[in-house]
Amino acid sequence: MQHEHISKQFDAELETVRSRVLQMGGLVEEQIVNAIEALINSKLDLADAVIAKDLQVNSMEVEIDEACAHIIARRQPTAGDLRMVMTVIKTITDLERIGDEAEKIARMSKLIYQTGRLSTPRFTEITLMSGIVLEMLRKSLDAFARLDIGTAVQVPRQDVLVDDAFSACMRHLITFMMEDPRTISTSLDVLFAAKAIERIGDHAKNMSEYVVYMVKGKDVRHTSLEEIERELE
Amino acid sequence: MQHEHISKQFDAELETVRSRVLQMGGLVEEQIVNAIEALINSKLDLADAVIAKDLQVNSMEVEIDEACAHIIARRQPTAGDLRMVMTVIKTITDLERIGDEAEKIARMSKLIYQTGRLSTPRFTEITLMSGIVLEMLRKSLDAFARLDIGTAVQVPRQDVLVDDAFSACMRHLITFMMEDPRTISTSLDVLFAAKAIERIGDHAKNMSEYVVYMVKGKDVRHTSLEEIERELE
Repeated sequence: MQHEHISKQFDAELETVRSRVLQMGGLVEEQIVNAIEALINSKLDLADAVIAKDLQVNSMEVEIDEACAHIIARRQPTAGDLRMVMTVIKTITDLERIGDEAEKIARMSKLIYQTGRLSTPRFTEITLMSGIVLEMLRKSLDAFARLDIGTAVQVPRQDVLVDDAFSACMRHLITFMMEDPRTISTSLDVLFAAKAIERIGDHAKNMSEYVVYMVKGKDVRHTSLEEIERELE
Repeated sequence: MQHEHISKQFDAELETVRSRVLQMGGLVEEQIVNAIEALINSKLDLADAVIAKDLQVNSMEVEIDEACAHIIARRQPTAGDLRMVMTVIKTITDLERIGDEAEKIARMSKLIYQTGRLSTPRFTEITLMSGIVLEMLRKSLDAFARLDIGTAVQVPRQDVLVDDAFSACMRHLITFMMEDPRTISTSLDVLFAAKAIERIGDHAKNMSEYVVYMVKGKDVRHTSLEEIERELE
């Protein structure tokens, strides 16, 4: 009975950590949505809000990290439980860095609209990329919540689309800059914002790979897409 | 006696993991040096070597990660030992990403020299930045090896210099592009290489902060430079 009681407490602690990760994921998702909105629709108040709220993302990372260290020290998890804790530790590092990228997008929005605003560049590819990376993040979090490998493996495939859209975005910006060199400075700010979105995709991909590790006990980082899919068939 | 024996084995395991981290750090340092050499002196063979060797960096990360999971499961570390293992897990994530940045620099070198080579941009700031980030990486590794907070806290201070050099680099590239729009495409490749170097500085800074956590048990991530230094006085 005593043992069962401890085990239930342990389960509750793990469950708390898991739900904190999902909360952190929700906050980070909101940060991306707001940063993109600030960028595309010149909402500078929203940009300021994103920059201010990054502190909250950072402190969630530290707090969840401490909870994990506490669980390892007190509960001495093994096998699946340990993989779960390791996954959380890795996942929150990527979530925190996604938060940093959202903050960068917000900062770039301010630069873009504060400096004169020559003809505004088109945001076609940026809108496309944002949609995909948000879906990737949601899928990674969903896969984490439901321990669902099927959802997790969709994410790396989508990352290829993001990289393609980024290349298209860069080609357009180059044309734009060559046609009117006065737009170079602003175009670079747009390019850095696009780069930040592309990196969010990379982080979401990392997170999806941790889920595979958590469920299968197999580390798929640095494995090719084809190998991962073959493995899961 | 039995207990002491187990403890000695445990110490040996921790020591092995620590020395693997330092080996991984040495490899990553070599990757940066070669990537920068490829970039500045148009050594394309070296660029190819860096790209090929990134696989080795990646597999070291996975291997050390597994060793850490093994230690947690079998040795159930607490307090300082646990902080050490957590530090290793975080540190190798940053080392692996520094390896990715070195690979990016190598890829950019190839693009820069393969596409026609209009007048080559000056690499003054890039040389400056590279020197600083290499020193930051060495200091972080050294601080990790000797558990030396005094060395660790020097690293964030140097990151400010890297950021300044990056801004100067960007300003020069913008002038260069405006003077001759035909250089825009190549200049952007140089800019991405500079950005990769700047990110290496960020990762080295992260690593130095983990050392403070390991030694003091205090998490200094997301704390201002002034606060960290006040704390240590």
